[in-house]
Amino acid sequence: MPEKVISRAVIRRLPRYYRYLNELQYEGVERISSGQLSKLMNVTASQIRQDLNNFGGFGQQGYGYNVRALHAEISKILGLDREYKMIIVGCGNLGQALANYTHYYKAGFIVCGMFDINPRLVGLSINDIEVMDYSALDEYLEQNQIDIGIICTNKGSAQEVADKLVMGKVKGIWNFAAVDLDVSDEVALENVHLSDSLQSLAYNINHMEE
Amino acid sequence: MPEKVISRAVIRRLPRYYRYLNELQYEGVERISSGQLSKLMNVTASQIRQDLNNFGGFGQQGYGYNVRALHAEISKILGLDREYKMIIVGCGNLGQALANYTHYYKAGFIVCGMFDINPRLVGLSINDIEVMDYSALDEYLEQNQIDIGIICTNKGSAQEVADKLVMGKVKGIWNFAAVDLDVSDEVALENVHLSDSLQSLAYNINHMEE
Repeated sequence: MPEKVISRAVIRRLPRYYRYLNELQYEGVERISSGQLSKLMNVTASQIRQDLNNFGGFGQQGYGYNVRALHAEISKILGLDREYKMIIVGCGNLGQALANYTHYYKAGFIVCGMFDINPRLVGLSINDIEVMDYSALDEYLEQNQIDIGIICTNKGSAQEVADKLVMGKVKGIWNFAAVDLDVSDEVALENVHLSDSLQSLAYNINHMEE
Repeated sequence: MPEKVISRAVIRRLPRYYRYLNELQYEGVERISSGQLSKLMNVTASQIRQDLNNFGGFGQQGYGYNVRALHAEISKILGLDREYKMIIVGCGNLGQALANYTHYYKAGFIVCGMFDINPRLVGLSINDIEVMDYSALDEYLEQNQIDIGIICTNKGSAQEVADKLVMGKVKGIWNFAAVDLDVSDEVALENVHLSDSLQSLAYNINHMEE
């Protein structure tokens, strides 16, 4: 189908729709109205209709949405109908947590390699993936086509790692280091800034007490 | 000072200002103009002036901002001038990663207790914090005033844990489980949905390829 331009705000909301439709499908629900979905997701029904209208005619007046079709379409839009090869750089607790998380919960996102600079971690096996020495990263990227590089290093090393990942032709970077990385426009960048999130929480706690 | 109402969007941006001001202070920079800050942070100077005007007269025409004063003020606004007692429920890799992370990088956010249901984890010590049995959570919360509960369980258990945390009078919940929790309006809730973040990255990768 000819692709419409979908706003960033809608894209941001898609994973959440995907998550709910996943649950509904799992529970055997075949159709759902915007009103029911609205109640479930705690957003207005008009917002839902507006968002989902971006993806063609999945809602029929009076019949609601076809859960399976909408789920499949959003899956396709998000690019979840293909596989992603990933590597993790920085294999402390967080890197290991992400390796386990994707292994058990994220079919389609495959960790192919893990790298660290710490000799006590190099050679360890995490979910059958051996932790390799960081010095082998460039060569590994040259020989393997990797889609996503996950950065779990400290903030001082993160930009250097990002540069290597860009040079090694990854298509996206999932960054957990507390820095704003400077990467080529051709590489997608998604940050998870835990520190910013914790500080927002602190702010909200104090402003509820008042 | 009489507190102005600050928009949610500005609040969302504050941790990032805080992070940059932290670095600048660390590097010994005393004053910075909105233009310099704009370049550094990659936002427009007028956005910066507008945002920082919310917090009174830290910028002087022609002199720029006093880094130390602005840092201190944002720290106060975010509530980083006090301590937060935290517990972690769910002590798999992610829970352990967060325990380490806050221990080493987040002064002021103190993990006081950790809880899990898995007998292989109960009794272990992580940064000198003993992992306690989940069944002891209610009593612990009754006897200790905890500010923040961190949920690192699977999604099936997360709502039950949230209910216990609310009952135990925490002020905020930092949720890493892939569900939208239903909590009392009096409790601040901050979600880190790793799955949503990874799916946004997948989307962006595919839409850069076009």
